[in-house]
Order: sequence, then C-alpha cells, then structure tokens
Amino acid sequence: MGEGAIELAVSTVIFALQPEAGTGRPSIRVPLVRRTRAPFEGGWALPGGWADAREGLAASARRTLAETTGLEPAYLEQLYTLGAVDRSPTGRVVSVVYWALVRAEEAEAVPEGENVAWFPAEELPQLAFDHARIVEYALWRLRTKMEYSRIAHALLGETFTISELRRVHEAVRGVVLDPANFRRHVESSPALVPTGERLTGGAHRPPRLYRYDTEVRLADNGPLDDTEESR
Amino acid sequence: MGEGAIELAVSTVIFALQPEAGTGRPSIRVPLVRRTRAPFEGGWALPGGWADAREGLAASARRTLAETTGLEPAYLEQLYTLGAVDRSPTGRVVSVVYWALVRAEEAEAVPEGENVAWFPAEELPQLAFDHARIVEYALWRLRTKMEYSRIAHALLGETFTISELRRVHEAVRGVVLDPANFRRHVESSPALVPTGERLTGGAHRPPRLYRYDTEVRLADNGPLDDTEESR
Repeated sequence: MGEGAIELAVSTVIFALQPEAGTGRPSIRVPLVRRTRAPFEGGWALPGGWADAREGLAASARRTLAETTGLEPAYLEQLYTLGAVDRSPTGRVVSVVYWALVRAEEAEAVPEGENVAWFPAEELPQLAFDHARIVEYALWRLRTKMEYSRIAHALLGETFTISELRRVHEAVRGVVLDPANFRRHVESSPALVPTGERLTGGAHRPPRLYRYDTEVRLADNGPLDDTEESR
Repeated sequence: MGEGAIELAVSTVIFALQPEAGTGRPSIRVPLVRRTRAPFEGGWALPGGWADAREGLAASARRTLAETTGLEPAYLEQLYTLGAVDRSPTGRVVSVVYWALVRAEEAEAVPEGENVAWFPAEELPQLAFDHARIVEYALWRLRTKMEYSRIAHALLGETFTISELRRVHEAVRGVVLDPANFRRHVESSPALVPTGERLTGGAHRPPRLYRYDTEVRLADNGPLDDTEESR
C-alpha cells in the first residue's frame, strides 16, 4: 500500500471542428464544464470526475463525460496521466486524461448553457488545475497524429470532398495549404477511396466525394487498445 | 472522492542492448524482479512498487526502480496507465508505467542474483499481472520511435560507428538492414555529426566515429515533458 492517500480522477479533452461565427471557417473547439464546488468553484474545467473502482479507466472517462456533457464519442484514446504533487490545492490527485474527436453534428447536440460551453482551443478562458497544460498537450498530439494517420476522418462525415479534408487539416494544423499540392498528396494515400459520386448542388462541375477505407486503422496505437482497456 | 478503494502503483520497463552469449550479436534485454510476496509470490515482474503521495509519478517510478534494481536511467518516459478492473487478484490496482533505455555498461552494473535478472525481450518467462502485455506494448513503442527519432542514441556510447548504429536498429526492429542503404539513410540525418575521428584498432582503414547532435531532442514528446511532471 502506498504512503498517504492518492485520489484518482479522469478527465477528457474533446475536439470538434465548428464553423466560426463570422467567417464560417472551421475552427477547433473544446467543451468545458463549469465547476460547481471548491476548489476553483465557478471556474471552467475539462469534463471529468472521480474514477470508480468498479469500472475500467476508459469506462470512467466515458461515464463522467456523458454525465457532464452528454457526449458519447466513438473513439477515445488515453493521452497522459498527470500526477505532480502540487496540482490540486486540496490533496494529492492523479488524473488519467483521455482525448477524443467528435463530428460537428455530435458537438451541436450538446446543450450549451451556464455550465457547459464550447470554446475555441486557441482562446480558452482561465482553466482550473493544470487543465490548460493538458489541452495544450492534447492539441500537440492531435497535430502530430494528423500528419501520419487518417485521424482527420473522425472530424468529417462519412463522405467528404478534398476541399473539406483540406480545411480540417488547415484548422487543426493552423496553416494554409496549397489546394493542388494537398490534393496530390492525399490522392496518393491508400486510405482515401473515391466513392464515384459527386457533391450535389448547383455547381457546373460539382466536386468528387471520397470516403476513408475503414480497413485502415484510424491510428495505429499498437498492442494496447483502449477498447480492451475499458473492460 | 471515487467509489471504492483504488491503489496506485508504478512500474518501469527498461531496455538495454546486450551481446548474446553465443553469437555476440546485440539483443534487447529487460530486467525483471522476483516477487517476494503474494500475489504471484516467487514469480517474475517488472520493477516497481506503490506510488507515494509525497512524490510525483516519475519520481515514484525512479525510486522503485532504484530500490529494486539499482538502475538510474537518464531518460524516463511515461508509457501508459493500466487500469482494467480484474488486472490484480487482490483488489483494484491502477499502474502508471514508465519506460527507459539504458546503455550496456549501465545494464552490466546491475548485480544479477536470485531476485533480479535480465531476460531477452522476446523470450521472457511467465510474468505476474498483465506485465507481459506491458512489455509487448513498450517494445512496440520503442520500435515505432526508433524509426522517427534519434532514440537509438540512448543505447549507444557517446561516439559510435555507422555499423554499431545499424546493429542497434537491427536488434530493436528485428530486421537485417542493407549496410550501404542504411549508411546513406542515416548520413542524411541532421542529428548525426561526424567527429572527424576513427575507431582505434588494428584495421587498415578503421571506421569513422560519429556522435549525435544533442541540440536535436532525443524524442519530441511535446509540451508535457517527464522532467516537469516529476517535480
């Protein structure tokens, strides 16, 4: 048995792409929950809560996320476990942090109110505990993974145009990409499959629709998969 | 406060390259510790122990590693936190797992005995708890990182020949690499610096010695670095 009491908590960083109010350009947003008790009462924090001894860690993350925001992401991945001695003012708390991506439609279904709201990932309010550092790390992981996996898929619909895919990459990576170069680059990916259909609409020559080959894993996380861990 | 008691433990997977007895080829080895109490009394397990509320998580990993094996690796990285409900037969235990690489000289300094021994990573004895899965995952992470970072450095001396570097890659990745292709590939890396010196010895034309540019980070782990977390 360890020396002294350590409490175990779980938190989840959720990313969604939602159109900016003015420009309509997609931007990365994060849902935050207002704390209803000390410490940091009234402040914003990541959705989460205490781990339950009867559940796996990912199951605790899913439960506390659903309880606080109603969100039930398809794909949840362990991000990091934070345990600095002084990270909570009221005792020793170790937090296992998960992260997930949700599509815009799922994000829109979250009832915003006084206690839950979406914020642009780059303009968060002051956060409780070390949650600002956690979001910063999750953003770094998202950007890194975006470059070598088909993780952008989790932010898009079943089918999408190359322009839509490029706008996801631009929003996440904070860059402007050359449309022709981007098209050449992604068209050579074995994970991208042309559906043979085109976007419906008024355009003279509507753009082609693509889908991802779901036989290619969303991201290669190796032998430990969260779905197993959540038993 | 969470429901029910959850105990927090730390474990560390250490990898070293040591020459095989017969062939002299380097092979990846892992130190294991014999358990002196139930559950799994007398069985082999990863070095580790209970987290201490007065220490950061990485500090607990370092302490328990030093207590059980005497090892003090320069570089320690968080690997994963395991928390399946049934992973320990005597209660709910969540384990934060770290991993590290040590050089052959450091590995040789560990006094082997009845309760500590090095085993080839591919031929481990039966391990307690889910430690076999943890080692499997750590090996996967090592192989993945080896491909895109200068992490091989942590297994080599300060200076090394291209052949020595190739043998590290061959041992870790379990492949045989073409010497000329490998040389071309690594010589184009900005992290590899020729020292201008050659290996001393009887050879007519002794091979050149290289070092890594330590301004290039060992591995890019993003904004959360274990050195900060271990405060």
